[in-house]
Amino acid sequence: MKLSIEKAQSFVPAGTLAAVAAQTAACNELLESGKGAGNDFLGWVHLPSSITEEFLNDVQATANLLREKCEVVVVAGIGGSYLGPRAVNEALASAFDAYQTCRKNPIVVYAGNNIGEDYLADLFDILKEKEFGIINISKSGTTTETALTFRILKTMLEEKVGKAEAQKRIVAVTDAKRGALCTLATKEGYRKYVIPDNVGGRFSVLTPVGLIAIAVAGNDIKALVRGAQDMEKATGVDVPYAENPAAQYAAMRNALYQFGKKTEILVNYQPKLHYMSEWWKQLYGESEGKDHKGIYPASVDFTTDLHSMGQWIQEGERTIFETVISIKNPNRTVVVPSDEENLDGLNFLAGKRVDQVNKMAELGTQIAHVDGGVPNMKIEIDKLDEYNLGQLIYFFERACGISGYILGVNPFNQPGVEAYKKNMFALLEKPGYEEATKAIKARLAE
Amino acid sequence: MKLSIEKAQSFVPAGTLAAVAAQTAACNELLESGKGAGNDFLGWVHLPSSITEEFLNDVQATANLLREKCEVVVVAGIGGSYLGPRAVNEALASAFDAYQTCRKNPIVVYAGNNIGEDYLADLFDILKEKEFGIINISKSGTTTETALTFRILKTMLEEKVGKAEAQKRIVAVTDAKRGALCTLATKEGYRKYVIPDNVGGRFSVLTPVGLIAIAVAGNDIKALVRGAQDMEKATGVDVPYAENPAAQYAAMRNALYQFGKKTEILVNYQPKLHYMSEWWKQLYGESEGKDHKGIYPASVDFTTDLHSMGQWIQEGERTIFETVISIKNPNRTVVVPSDEENLDGLNFLAGKRVDQVNKMAELGTQIAHVDGGVPNMKIEIDKLDEYNLGQLIYFFERACGISGYILGVNPFNQPGVEAYKKNMFALLEKPGYEEATKAIKARLAE
Repeated sequence: MKLSIEKAQSFVPAGTLAAVAAQTAACNELLESGKGAGNDFLGWVHLPSSITEEFLNDVQATANLLREKCEVVVVAGIGGSYLGPRAVNEALASAFDAYQTCRKNPIVVYAGNNIGEDYLADLFDILKEKEFGIINISKSGTTTETALTFRILKTMLEEKVGKAEAQKRIVAVTDAKRGALCTLATKEGYRKYVIPDNVGGRFSVLTPVGLIAIAVAGNDIKALVRGAQDMEKATGVDVPYAENPAAQYAAMRNALYQFGKKTEILVNYQPKLHYMSEWWKQLYGESEGKDHKGIYPASVDFTTDLHSMGQWIQEGERTIFETVISIKNPNRTVVVPSDEENLDGLNFLAGKRVDQVNKMAELGTQIAHVDGGVPNMKIEIDKLDEYNLGQLIYFFERACGISGYILGVNPFNQPGVEAYKKNMFALLEKPGYEEATKAIKARLAE
Repeated sequence: MKLSIEKAQSFVPAGTLAAVAAQTAACNELLESGKGAGNDFLGWVHLPSSITEEFLNDVQATANLLREKCEVVVVAGIGGSYLGPRAVNEALASAFDAYQTCRKNPIVVYAGNNIGEDYLADLFDILKEKEFGIINISKSGTTTETALTFRILKTMLEEKVGKAEAQKRIVAVTDAKRGALCTLATKEGYRKYVIPDNVGGRFSVLTPVGLIAIAVAGNDIKALVRGAQDMEKATGVDVPYAENPAAQYAAMRNALYQFGKKTEILVNYQPKLHYMSEWWKQLYGESEGKDHKGIYPASVDFTTDLHSMGQWIQEGERTIFETVISIKNPNRTVVVPSDEENLDGLNFLAGKRVDQVNKMAELGTQIAHVDGGVPNMKIEIDKLDEYNLGQLIYFFERACGISGYILGVNPFNQPGVEAYKKNMFALLEKPGYEEATKAIKARLAE
């Protein structure tokens, strides 16, 4: 993985960047020493290097069981429990995976991440016809979206295949000792995996939260973890700023933010990375968006969105910067054919790989956007595979920790996520919320 | 359709909103009189009411032909030629449409909207096994992404089913008289539909650009157009501000923008609306993002993204506002079951429709976000069907025209979209770009 920040540097005075860069070592050290804010949630820092072969073999065995038994595996989770596994699986699958008729891998679908009544009904239509299993991911087991979905799916599965078989097709990823799902898993005898107490949802993709579903989809979790391990080394406290991509990315984006660049747009040129961007949005938005500050994390899929958001990016308010994820080598090969009549005028591309055109779109866009006043950073990975995604994931996590400390927030809490839940429970008259129910009803009656 | 702006009003002084509101009639009148900027592109204003039954029958007949012959229909287009049909089709399809085994409708896939080499190779894998057809949508026929894809797909189809049969399975949507695709369509004898000269891409969904693909997917284009026709009446120049939702939405968002609310987040609580948001982003971003101004259009799918972007929205910089699309009635029914043990504590929801929970999440979120300093607007539609989507589409278009004129830009051009293309062609050494090639290579060598 290679980070380039040159095309962003000219947008901030050298002194500013140097001053921010000088903070990175201390911030990185706080992640190591555990003396910073949110230090109860630093389990992700040395997570990759702490993962054992034995543990991965066990996860793989569970995944294999689901792979054997199920045509469809429903991953029920929300937040990091949804975005983590989906980001990796979609990046590695065929862009048209859903339409494959001869499948090597089970279909993996995602639920428990919304409360759409149509969404659930549509899901049931599919599951009725298929042999399915469930990975239910929830620390507490009471998160509304996920618990609601699981309650219904569990009943459906038990009615379909019987309680004994259902027990084999349900995997619980939850708290080690307490909570509704932990209790249920013990009682029913589900295979159970632990979400560590010191790893927050948005940092959990390399725990069973992500790993089981990623293995079920047929992806190599050992290579994924190996990538993360290498990046853990490459971004550690002993790696100086000049060689540390996490420190550089954290510094550059904070310097830009200090100079009025309020929105960061994560860009890809391979639509398979769409959900990596969604995962990244949670990672940075939830870590930094507090105390009325933080960069707004947005994303686009190029070249698609050059034809929708491209105009705004080129000529709208100059309050944005871009970070481009560039994949050096495509996994497959398509060459532009020659055409005798050349009505479309594309023969100048004949014989070129399609990716060569894509790369020139990328370079042409970088030049155009920088010319237009949009600072650009670039993260280049060699190819879209498990190893490189593992690197990318840990890179973003480590940089996020450093970046949040530079910003001066606790990057590991998310107090604002509770506000809507409290209102929702009060409105739904949840037991225990009697006072809140009274209060909110009074407000609504005003 | 019902627009509510009350939860946004308190964030701007009454005088400001009144002043902006007072401009809306004149701006709306400019759309009618054609005396404003960009008046070459006002064909969309009275498009709905100009569509005839006969025309829709013809479009439907073409769609039926593709429906009979094809298991898969590839819609090749980019920008509005991609987002328009996809927004409507995804909103109306099963959330798990891709996995349906007994299909009533052909699979509709989208291509020609990116230059991903893997994306194309993955697409070919699917098409090899299926009977497919192509709707190729391009005004010029030379837009790189779409032309490149079509060049390859056309060859593939001809090799598979022969030239005569391919000719029946390819529909061209293009310029009336000129351009590469127009010429090719005439020469090959493709069914040809016209993109009117005075309708820009982002306003084109109710032309054949959108209608054919929407009909192919099994959706009722007559109802869609009827919805748009009714909204054309409801937002016309003779409808006063107090009753005109397009004028109110345009005024409110401009008033908020003047008071530092720089980003508008379009919110849904039904993930099927995801691509409606993408379509909306192009509509507003491309219309307003120029002259270094314009609201940044962003979007989220709730409640999913309450667990990713929720924290930032609740407590980040106070520079955002939300516009929520709320669907009053779901199309399907799922009731929360009771559970004897109630380990998940959800029995207080038992017997409720899932949508009731969703609606309380929506209301609870509105209250939390407004309390947190985020102005909220709400657009309520009765249900997710063709008629209501037609209303919504025209509502957003009309409001966009008014809004752009209030902002003081030409809402109907997109000069910034060319910048990256010029660089790309220069880098790819396209004939005619010799000077630009020399210049850009010199820059890169610096």
